[in-house]
Amino acid sequence: MAEQVQLRVALAQVDTRVGDITGNAALVVDWTARAAQADAHVVVFPEMTLTGYPPEDLVLRESFAHASERALVELATALDEQGLGGTAVVVGYLAHTEGRGPAAVDEPPTADEDRPADANPRHGAPRNAAALLHGGRVVVRYYKRHLPNYGVFDEARYFVPGTELPVVRLHGVDVALTVCEDLWVEGGPCGVAGQAGVDLVLSPNASPYERAKDDARLPLVRRRAAEARATIVYCNQVGGQDELVFDGDSMAVAPDGTLLARAPQFVEHLLTVDLAFDPAAVPERREGRIGPMTVSRHVVSEQPVAPFEAQPGAVAEPLGDAEEVWRALVLGLRDFIEKNGFPSVVLGLSGGIDSALVAALAVDALGADRVHGVGLPSKWSSEHSLADAEDLARRTGLHYSVVPIAPMVDAYESSVELSGVAAENLQARVRGTLLMALSNQHGHLLLTTGNKSEVAVGYSTLYGDSAGGFGPIKDVPKTLVWELARWRNAYAAERGETEPIPRNSIEKPPSAELAPGQQDSDSLPSYEELDAVVADYVDRDLGMADLLERGHDPEVVARVLRLVDTAEFKRRQSAPGTKISLKAFGRDRRLPVTNRWRETLPTVREGARA
Amino acid sequence: MAEQVQLRVALAQVDTRVGDITGNAALVVDWTARAAQADAHVVVFPEMTLTGYPPEDLVLRESFAHASERALVELATALDEQGLGGTAVVVGYLAHTEGRGPAAVDEPPTADEDRPADANPRHGAPRNAAALLHGGRVVVRYYKRHLPNYGVFDEARYFVPGTELPVVRLHGVDVALTVCEDLWVEGGPCGVAGQAGVDLVLSPNASPYERAKDDARLPLVRRRAAEARATIVYCNQVGGQDELVFDGDSMAVAPDGTLLARAPQFVEHLLTVDLAFDPAAVPERREGRIGPMTVSRHVVSEQPVAPFEAQPGAVAEPLGDAEEVWRALVLGLRDFIEKNGFPSVVLGLSGGIDSALVAALAVDALGADRVHGVGLPSKWSSEHSLADAEDLARRTGLHYSVVPIAPMVDAYESSVELSGVAAENLQARVRGTLLMALSNQHGHLLLTTGNKSEVAVGYSTLYGDSAGGFGPIKDVPKTLVWELARWRNAYAAERGETEPIPRNSIEKPPSAELAPGQQDSDSLPSYEELDAVVADYVDRDLGMADLLERGHDPEVVARVLRLVDTAEFKRRQSAPGTKISLKAFGRDRRLPVTNRWRETLPTVREGARA
Repeated sequence: MAEQVQLRVALAQVDTRVGDITGNAALVVDWTARAAQADAHVVVFPEMTLTGYPPEDLVLRESFAHASERALVELATALDEQGLGGTAVVVGYLAHTEGRGPAAVDEPPTADEDRPADANPRHGAPRNAAALLHGGRVVVRYYKRHLPNYGVFDEARYFVPGTELPVVRLHGVDVALTVCEDLWVEGGPCGVAGQAGVDLVLSPNASPYERAKDDARLPLVRRRAAEARATIVYCNQVGGQDELVFDGDSMAVAPDGTLLARAPQFVEHLLTVDLAFDPAAVPERREGRIGPMTVSRHVVSEQPVAPFEAQPGAVAEPLGDAEEVWRALVLGLRDFIEKNGFPSVVLGLSGGIDSALVAALAVDALGADRVHGVGLPSKWSSEHSLADAEDLARRTGLHYSVVPIAPMVDAYESSVELSGVAAENLQARVRGTLLMALSNQHGHLLLTTGNKSEVAVGYSTLYGDSAGGFGPIKDVPKTLVWELARWRNAYAAERGETEPIPRNSIEKPPSAELAPGQQDSDSLPSYEELDAVVADYVDRDLGMADLLERGHDPEVVARVLRLVDTAEFKRRQSAPGTKISLKAFGRDRRLPVTNRWRETLPTVREGARA
Repeated sequence: MAEQVQLRVALAQVDTRVGDITGNAALVVDWTARAAQADAHVVVFPEMTLTGYPPEDLVLRESFAHASERALVELATALDEQGLGGTAVVVGYLAHTEGRGPAAVDEPPTADEDRPADANPRHGAPRNAAALLHGGRVVVRYYKRHLPNYGVFDEARYFVPGTELPVVRLHGVDVALTVCEDLWVEGGPCGVAGQAGVDLVLSPNASPYERAKDDARLPLVRRRAAEARATIVYCNQVGGQDELVFDGDSMAVAPDGTLLARAPQFVEHLLTVDLAFDPAAVPERREGRIGPMTVSRHVVSEQPVAPFEAQPGAVAEPLGDAEEVWRALVLGLRDFIEKNGFPSVVLGLSGGIDSALVAALAVDALGADRVHGVGLPSKWSSEHSLADAEDLARRTGLHYSVVPIAPMVDAYESSVELSGVAAENLQARVRGTLLMALSNQHGHLLLTTGNKSEVAVGYSTLYGDSAGGFGPIKDVPKTLVWELARWRNAYAAERGETEPIPRNSIEKPPSAELAPGQQDSDSLPSYEELDAVVADYVDRDLGMADLLERGHDPEVVARVLRLVDTAEFKRRQSAPGTKISLKAFGRDRRLPVTNRWRETLPTVREGARA
């Protein structure tokens, strides 16, 4: 057996903050020190570490891009000054490469010159970049080649794709960099790396959580490791950013597909993995043009590290589905609150399951002392409403108060004549106004408690129950709301803790309680039926023919689609909430408000040639 | 002089509806009949005529793309059946070409296969297409090559770029098609057409209005006509679609840059232009690979049309800036209301300039009988508030009523303790709730009256004065609000009509009247200063160094930027409004809510290598 070359690699699965270049650079120094403490030779950070991800239109601000470039150079210096220059650091950043600057400010950019083909005409050439830092300097810069531009991603709006693959020899190991989406493409940079001949691919990622996505990642990384004929180290960020939550799930996979190490989900974590390479296993090491890319080779150090006793990598088990969703929602909520500097949250407690679940999430995210629940009974509220809300408050320990809404409702109704839906909505808006008043008076963030089923069909009052700065369960269908409530109670019971959610809130039939004896089932199909149609129509974009082929009741489909289509104006004004599904409402699904399209079965026109 | 070949071309500058494939196809038949009536040999419609533009994520729905494809074929048949098959029709549509279908519905699309490079992994291969129809059949299909993906455009999200340039001989004239953005690129399809040798380029467009954009269009089309060595017929759509309004401004330009005809802005219009070609002026007519495209040649008819007496083309003068903006706002508002089927609108009238301007716009858009204004005085309202609102109602003839808000405000304040901003916001929210109650009760669309200056700095109450389904002046800075009011009054005076806007509303100092003696200048810089900073920071994306270099007061800049940066959460929940500027809030500017970036002057770190 040939002599082996070793390397200890650390994966810094950190929670960065969008726009906080200074803070993120400090985070890199801190975690590099921890990696050095663990005797790692190289540490990998997530995609766009310095800017946070996704920075959205900040990318188009030249001052921001220049600050990112400056911060990268200063970071290399700072690491070296703190004695960390010997640890190689792979860090993501926003690069601002040569290109046309923004158009002259006094003229519209379209006035006097043609646009460069297929580029953003208003800005230079920003890149989604990763750099390898060592010994106080920026050794190489890699520019992401494959730019996702679907779902929540707009990277074609921002970045120019890279065409170069630098390979760095570090302690005798040839290391290539790729960034996130590059890993999802067969024949992409990993294929080029495979042809060029490398030992190791280091990949910073910012891959948002979706249910079951962790099931896709490992097979994906395995395919790329085989294609690259190299070990792949995949470091994903963790944390919430507006609609997105990142679960981490960082891992290292050998060329033969062996999972060497895997980080736990939804927590910051330093994962180390000890690797050994057989230099003879790479038959040829090439440079120059390979496929669509140009490979260059760089040397930091030929000398292998002194042999050390390799430790087996830790392999975290992925979480079960319900726990995974729960932790995603808790982290998405917590990070929105903490990163935006809110001291506390407030929400209306109806005694129903949605507000109970949001309250339990908020207590898990912030602790009971930062959560304020308000009962807002009306004349149509049932007896159990207040009792269940009080029970929830007792179980979770949140702050609880009650403000009956009758005096306000009466004042409006004495001033203007209202009936039907207008009168129902009034009650919801009085509640929204009261909660916003408490938010303004005390600095609480108001949480809105609408679930995905309601948001889909517009079963909510604009500026009423939809009021709020964040919607923790906006992407959670009602059937999953119940499932999560049961899971959370069972989780508590297993640990001998109080079940946070009153069983009555879980078991009673859902009602908006805006009219006497009202139940959701008066105006909606069963949530089982509704959620199944929403999953197919919204998440999977199926048309009428496919929906019927999937076995849905034609009448239910027609009803649900009409509601979904006409509720777009409400969703356009809704608060952000954590995405957990294949397609969440928000950036992920961009439909016009003004839209005449309605799904029908295609009719074949007489005499038409199709 | 060689014998000339003639052609009469019609430009159908129409107002399509997004999603209304059936209705849009009927519109094409109708306007083709009008073109035939005018003895036109070919008629050109705007970009994506059949689907309307922009269809946004409808493109990703296979049922929609298939319906568009079917409608195209049926349209060719229908035209022929109605005796219009002899008129060539160039129509835009959504094509669904071969490609991977959507992923299997039971599995996440990322689970079991790699993504194709740089394509939307979830869908097939939609194209932004234009077809030439003649004699009952689809003669050629052209796929847009250059896909705008900046500002409000997301075309890289939706479409696969085309690589083929079909050229059709029609009555002995060689005609090439291009679509919209293709015209903005030097060396694009027009350059290829110039090398291939064509007589005429027909270009369907959907180019949204921005101030001064019409000044850019003519020079642009002239550059492309020179490059194509051919006459360019540029047909743009007209009408409002959510945030966008399209001004038309269709035109025909000869290879030497002569403007042959130009349509008026903001109205549907059939423009005809008589063209004459010298076949010998095209030295060579090639096909096959030219640059990045493949040119094919097709023949509908070699036989020139019978000689006719050419009429000089009509050349409409572009409107002045204020009138142009006014008409853009009126059309954007009218189309939002009509296309969404609202019978009427309601808005709060404060006596101030913003609500007065929105009321005047609404009356111009809908007629006074469909506009309902409500005075909502509080104990802090000044005497002139109600008087000015009444004066506005009298001048415009809109429906007017008054609902004092004190009873509701008192009811809230008896239930919860409120002070400062919380008490100010309460008044605005009581007004919002009352107006929404009237909206729900009577079916009015509620208009929100915030201007761009307020929206920029968050000088509004969420769910209060920001409540509403559409914001007609959302992209109009306060200084332009005054200018438009003065212009509209002068326009009325010139015609001997009543000035719609009370002079007192224009001349009094602006105030939100939420606290005693309150004026906007208590919390904001002057609107002249504010608007200048917003134009540079928001519209032009300048950083701190550039802002100071432009001569703004550093203290004002610091104050305005802090306000703009922290108001993102309010804008995320705001109603759509018509874009008139280089960069409007909405799809045009996508910033994170959670965002730590604050503009400061760059500091050079000691010892850093930059």
